[in-house]
Amino acid sequence: MIGRRRLVADVVAVNEVSKTGRTIAQLAALVGATLEIPQGLDASRVVTGLNTVDRAIEGELTFVGSVKFARLLHATKALAAVVSNDVEIPAGNQHFITLRVKSADHAMITILELFADPESLPPVGVDPSARIDASASIAPGVRIGPFVSVGANAVIGADTALYSGVVIYQSVRLGDNCVLHSNSTVRERCVLGSRVILSSGVVIGTDGFGYRPTNDGSGMAKVPHIGNVVIDDDVEIGANSCIDRGEFGATRIGAGSKIDNLCQIGHNVEIGRLVVISGHTGIAGSTRIGDGCRIGGGCGISDHLVIGKGASFAARSGVMGDVPEGASWGGYPAQEFRQALREMAVIRKLPEWQRQLTQLLGPQKAP
Amino acid sequence: MIGRRRLVADVVAVNEVSKTGRTIAQLAALVGATLEIPQGLDASRVVTGLNTVDRAIEGELTFVGSVKFARLLHATKALAAVVSNDVEIPAGNQHFITLRVKSADHAMITILELFADPESLPPVGVDPSARIDASASIAPGVRIGPFVSVGANAVIGADTALYSGVVIYQSVRLGDNCVLHSNSTVRERCVLGSRVILSSGVVIGTDGFGYRPTNDGSGMAKVPHIGNVVIDDDVEIGANSCIDRGEFGATRIGAGSKIDNLCQIGHNVEIGRLVVISGHTGIAGSTRIGDGCRIGGGCGISDHLVIGKGASFAARSGVMGDVPEGASWGGYPAQEFRQALREMAVIRKLPEWQRQLTQLLGPQKAP
Amino acid sequence: MIGRRRLVADVVAVNEVSKTGRTIAQLAALVGATLEIPQGLDASRVVTGLNTVDRAIEGELTFVGSVKFARLLHATKALAAVVSNDVEIPAGNQHFITLRVKSADHAMITILELFADPESLPPVGVDPSARIDASASIAPGVRIGPFVSVGANAVIGADTALYSGVVIYQSVRLGDNCVLHSNSTVRERCVLGSRVILSSGVVIGTDGFGYRPTNDGSGMAKVPHIGNVVIDDDVEIGANSCIDRGEFGATRIGAGSKIDNLCQIGHNVEIGRLVVISGHTGIAGSTRIGDGCRIGGGCGISDHLVIGKGASFAARSGVMGDVPEGASWGGYPAQEFRQALREMAVIRKLPEWQRQLTQLLGPQKAP
Repeated sequence: MIGRRRLVADVVAVNEVSKTGRTIAQLAALVGATLEIPQGLDASRVVTGLNTVDRAIEGELTFVGSVKFARLLHATKALAAVVSNDVEIPAGNQHFITLRVKSADHAMITILELFADPESLPPVGVDPSARIDASASIAPGVRIGPFVSVGANAVIGADTALYSGVVIYQSVRLGDNCVLHSNSTVRERCVLGSRVILSSGVVIGTDGFGYRPTNDGSGMAKVPHIGNVVIDDDVEIGANSCIDRGEFGATRIGAGSKIDNLCQIGHNVEIGRLVVISGHTGIAGSTRIGDGCRIGGGCGISDHLVIGKGASFAARSGVMGDVPEGASWGGYPAQEFRQALREMAVIRKLPEWQRQLTQLLGPQKAP
Repeated sequence: MIGRRRLVADVVAVNEVSKTGRTIAQLAALVGATLEIPQGLDASRVVTGLNTVDRAIEGELTFVGSVKFARLLHATKALAAVVSNDVEIPAGNQHFITLRVKSADHAMITILELFADPESLPPVGVDPSARIDASASIAPGVRIGPFVSVGANAVIGADTALYSGVVIYQSVRLGDNCVLHSNSTVRERCVLGSRVILSSGVVIGTDGFGYRPTNDGSGMAKVPHIGNVVIDDDVEIGANSCIDRGEFGATRIGAGSKIDNLCQIGHNVEIGRLVVISGHTGIAGSTRIGDGCRIGGGCGISDHLVIGKGASFAARSGVMGDVPEGASWGGYPAQEFRQALREMAVIRKLPEWQRQLTQLLGPQKAP
Repeated sequence: MIGRRRLVADVVAVNEVSKTGRTIAQLAALVGATLEIPQGLDASRVVTGLNTVDRAIEGELTFVGSVKFARLLHATKALAAVVSNDVEIPAGNQHFITLRVKSADHAMITILELFADPESLPPVGVDPSARIDASASIAPGVRIGPFVSVGANAVIGADTALYSGVVIYQSVRLGDNCVLHSNSTVRERCVLGSRVILSSGVVIGTDGFGYRPTNDGSGMAKVPHIGNVVIDDDVEIGANSCIDRGEFGATRIGAGSKIDNLCQIGHNVEIGRLVVISGHTGIAGSTRIGDGCRIGGGCGISDHLVIGKGASFAARSGVMGDVPEGASWGGYPAQEFRQALREMAVIRKLPEWQRQLTQLLGPQKAP
């Protein structure tokens, strides 16, 4: 068993934020759930915390949005479970209260928001240690923490929060209600819309990776990158991810797109709206990703490609060509995912084929 | 269409830096171009900006260095295009001025440098908030921004710039004219040559990843890393990349080499001169990379290998053995790239083979 | 030859730390070695430094723990070599002194520790520039460098060191004797045990990557992450690696585990004790990794998996299913590694098979 031993500090820390005093009946009302209450249980009990089916302890609430988790219910210690209407609960599970809802996932967000701590943003105002250039424009309600630098002519929108160590280069424009976590950087002239979240260590607008051999062949000249990065509203970018500035023109991230940790977006890439990109993915220069694409973890997408709207990629896809709208691709080189899976299945049979071919062709010609 | 909607702020920000007042004729003279001017157009017009063939707007200049981009010229709105001599312009493109040059790529660098903002380095001097150890040696012309730490016995060369939040551990030596961007770190005793650029979040000289089981088997002992990292002149390292210090002796990056974002260079790796390493690439301990190698994105190179001069690797190569000079490899396990492509092509045929073999061998023995 | 040219500064920097004044005889006594001294050499000579077999210079000591390095001994310039008992030294190597030990690797750690500089931690106390919330609890012996932020209700254990630019969010608990390098971040409510090392740029407790389509389908709602990260004693995490907080409950890293640079650990992952994870590896949400697993570089492990104790994975494995205890897997999709190698070998033969099948089936039906 992994992780059985719980640090006391851990239990305290998590429980501190889990006490809302709400009863099962109150939470059911909140999410519009129908209650199924076994004999001897009581919806007036207070929910002490939220947890996964297998980790929940006495008094906690859990969530079941798929058959996979329903199978674990027989052993749960949870007081109650929020279960999607279309998920059947295996017979004999009379030891917890069920809150039936249309979508356990959606109900979970509502309840998580209730249990979440209020975000501990830096206080409104500018920390006295922060270094704000006199030419920068700081809107009302801004929260600037210690050791933040804001360069010349930068514009910080209303209610935007900059945590400790954030560096804003000159002529950057940040919209309203952004949250930039510790030690993230926005390089010169980049533009962020409103409600953008940068996790810690994110770097926006570093120079693209472009060099040309010098005329005398003795070295490599750096290609100047006079463009910038333009990030639209409601984008979130994960910790330590990097987005290169355009060579000329902008690298663009469309509204509502979400990029996970440790991703690399090359110069002049254009990402559409509501695109989801998982961790360790790299997208090379000038490629265009259509609206609503979903890209699994560890993918690599080559440069100058056009990826159609709504395409999805399995984790670790290596994409070397254009992709049509709505396609579901995988593998390396990436192709239609069902075909990739078929190939993987056939490859598993190759050693057996080898034996058969040897019989068929005779050992002297055998492959 | 992706990214059609342009934020007003974005357009302003990019255009602010694009006004040089130069005419087409002046730019042509600057790069030694021959002008081809269609009826009704005029080389005395001022170029308002630079852009890609398909994104250029009225008044802008674009660049065509390959047939691929020449094919897009019919729809360009650019006022003028710098075109390499060996690229044929498809017939019927009379709506822009052509500047013919030997290499559009080289001309582009010259013109980009003209349009680029002067780099907004921190001002000469040491920001009053910076914490410089009394034993450190700071050369003339150094530019040290806010919240920079410089440790004991460190040496900072002439005209070197350290942006906000840079951390220099003790006994580090930086050469002249280096630029270290925000929140990058150079750990104890590492040595950088001159004109080295570290992007934001780079970590030079973190401990290598080495452990040995303890004698009693109850844990793992950390192997001390008493070596350092030695980076030669004119190296550039991309955002959030990490270079481990040597166990003993140095991890080395040769002069003029360029490393992209989010790369990992293991302890005691030795990288030659003018090597180019694209994003998300990892090189494991003690491997030696010869001069002039080119390594695509997302490659992994195993430990203790010798990679010959001038070898190149396709993106996502997994290199498990030594590689001869000048080789062009790809795939996993990496091999001669043409052979890797041949295998990929045959793999695509496997499902079809399966059908044929089933006929040939009969269903009962079919693979 | 790579890296032949040595910067003067480099040699100086490394040698400065390599002078302990110990003789070969003294070092032999320290590690319990048996000495083999060729004619004309002398164990009373002082060892001037440590180096690899092929890079050692006159006066230095080297280490040979395997036949691979023994083969390089004929050309070494080292004064002496520590050699494991079970490694045969090729005949004709009379030009250096041999220190025979049970394990050259273990002897190396002992000697490296002797040659290592004392770690240059920030001085005991709190740097006047650091920003410590009045409600934080700071134990005796703590070393807090410049520009460090410590949030409300945080607890910093005895003798823990925070380098320049570290950011500790509110309600974090750090144990004793931890070392957090420059610009690393621990987000709200995360818990670290004792003797934990975070390299520069590490981010602990960033929000997990979870979104759900909004009810109206127009966007994506962020799933609140009310959990935290719990890291047990003696864990070390490499530069710029990221560990997401749990959605509810904790993401856990077990005692003594070691994670390399640029790794990504998803929300609610549970990593057991003494697990070793190499660089660029990503582990997706809720997966459980058993005690003692060893994961090579660049691996990707899918979400919600159970990986048994002691399993090991070759570099670049793509793991898509549960893995039994003690298994040795590799490839993509990962499988028993010997089987993966067998497939790779057969794939190398496919172009030859194609020729043979064409003969067999006739060109018109040939695959």
